[in-house]
Amino acid sequence: MLPLLDLARDVIAAQPFSRLLGAEIADFSERGVELRLPITPQLLQQDGFVHGGVLSYVADNAITFAGGGALGPAVVTSEYKISYLRPAKGETLVARATVVHAGRSLAVCDCEVFYVEEGNARLCAVALGTVSARAKSPS
Amino acid sequence: MLPLLDLARDVIAAQPFSRLLGAEIADFSERGVELRLPITPQLLQQDGFVHGGVLSYVADNAITFAGGGALGPAVVTSEYKISYLRPAKGETLVARATVVHAGRSLAVCDCEVFYVEEGNARLCAVALGTVSARAKSPS
Amino acid sequence: MLPLLDLARDVIAAQPFSRLLGAEIADFSERGVELRLPITPQLLQQDGFVHGGVLSYVADNAITFAGGGALGPAVVTSEYKISYLRPAKGETLVARATVVHAGRSLAVCDCEVFYVEEGNARLCAVALGTVSARAKSPS
Amino acid sequence: MLPLLDLARDVIAAQPFSRLLGAEIADFSERGVELRLPITPQLLQQDGFVHGGVLSYVADNAITFAGGGALGPAVVTSEYKISYLRPAKGETLVARATVVHAGRSLAVCDCEVFYVEEGNARLCAVALGTVSARAKSPS
Repeated sequence: MLPLLDLARDVIAAQPFSRLLGAEIADFSERGVELRLPITPQLLQQDGFVHGGVLSYVADNAITFAGGGALGPAVVTSEYKISYLRPAKGETLVARATVVHAGRSLAVCDCEVFYVEEGNARLCAVALGTVSARAKSPS
Repeated sequence: MLPLLDLARDVIAAQPFSRLLGAEIADFSERGVELRLPITPQLLQQDGFVHGGVLSYVADNAITFAGGGALGPAVVTSEYKISYLRPAKGETLVARATVVHAGRSLAVCDCEVFYVEEGNARLCAVALGTVSARAKSPS
Repeated sequence: MLPLLDLARDVIAAQPFSRLLGAEIADFSERGVELRLPITPQLLQQDGFVHGGVLSYVADNAITFAGGGALGPAVVTSEYKISYLRPAKGETLVARATVVHAGRSLAVCDCEVFYVEEGNARLCAVALGTVSARAKSPS
Repeated sequence: MLPLLDLARDVIAAQPFSRLLGAEIADFSERGVELRLPITPQLLQQDGFVHGGVLSYVADNAITFAGGGALGPAVVTSEYKISYLRPAKGETLVARATVVHAGRSLAVCDCEVFYVEEGNARLCAVALGTVSARAKSPS
């Protein structure tokens, strides 16, 4: 079996939307995943901060990968909630998702999203979601 | 005062991330907002469906605009929860957000996200969130 | 098969906590469920309004029953989000939950909670949650 | 000023619903709050586990108190999401809520709910919510 990190990098490389945004998997173990995204001008909203949709994207994707580490690669995020804490700016977004609890078909994962500015990381969003193993046959 | 629709179109035109994705405000009244997004190849994930992060983006943004219709233009989405219902495909995403309840500083809004394929709209995600009026001075 | 309404009434009668609070199933069909709860002094918080925990209880329970109508009786609520809209008072709480989408093992349900005061119903909370079919064998 | 712990105990003693359930504040500091609830037969559902509504109650209440520690005593929980992880049983429920981020009028808090059985604590639910300072005048 491919190491989780390689597998996750293959998946994210196969996601056109992740390539458009520039996300990469920085770390992946059974415990969780770290996804990184350079903050570029096209990711901003009208006040010069990172668009909330980008924070949502990194949280959603990190949660999916973390859940996949527990349930296997055929997973989808069923739902999540995200709370935005402060405007995000700087050079890089970092999303760290971990598995809170995994059963056979569902995993609950949480995620912290930081922005890094001049080397300092500040928490800018937290999320909590459910990842679901996909049924083998079409539903 | 500018009509809500014009104001919202100015805001979305000033969001680089919304321009990158191609979102537009289709309708806006005191009751709610409709945001539309043509589904292009760069918005997909590895299986050819619309990436969850895109569904989150349209829900988040529609909720923010709906809340702004109730609270005024200086708002942020504080938090939301989204449930994905089925894979999204087709030609267009349509997000319709309405105000469930608005107080003086907080508005609770819900949102339905549809994909349109060959003229048929199917519900693919629902969201529920809170929009907050921004403080006048920095917090 | 017992009608849904009878089955739900048997289940709620078998829940000591539901008996403690005084909840009853008022209506149940494939489309959704209505749960009612007389507002008694012991359900209040320090300001004389219904305790948020009670609103959560009725939303959670109504969502579980609605999901059970779609997935079968062996279900649990996996998660939900609730937004409180205004303080609840009056004579009766009414929670109406409906199925937004049901797959084979998961159902997404929403719920509106009203309080009824002198015959007028006012929306006081909305919720959105996921109901999961329980695995046949212990997990 | 009364210490937070005394103030919180006065509030919970003034909540009829908290007295009905038997909750008590075990610990309270600026960092967070611990709420405890003896598991009695009347708090169960039909399978002999703690009713989800009880887990919601302790999470909701712990989040409110944690937020009050950051924003002051006049607060309400605006919304929260809870994920149930496993059936709860044993002798005691313990809910620990902490402030993730506090602004001037909103605080985001998370909460872990454990059940204690024969001295062992197991995580059975996690929650994430928003606490809001109440407006001085009626809204």
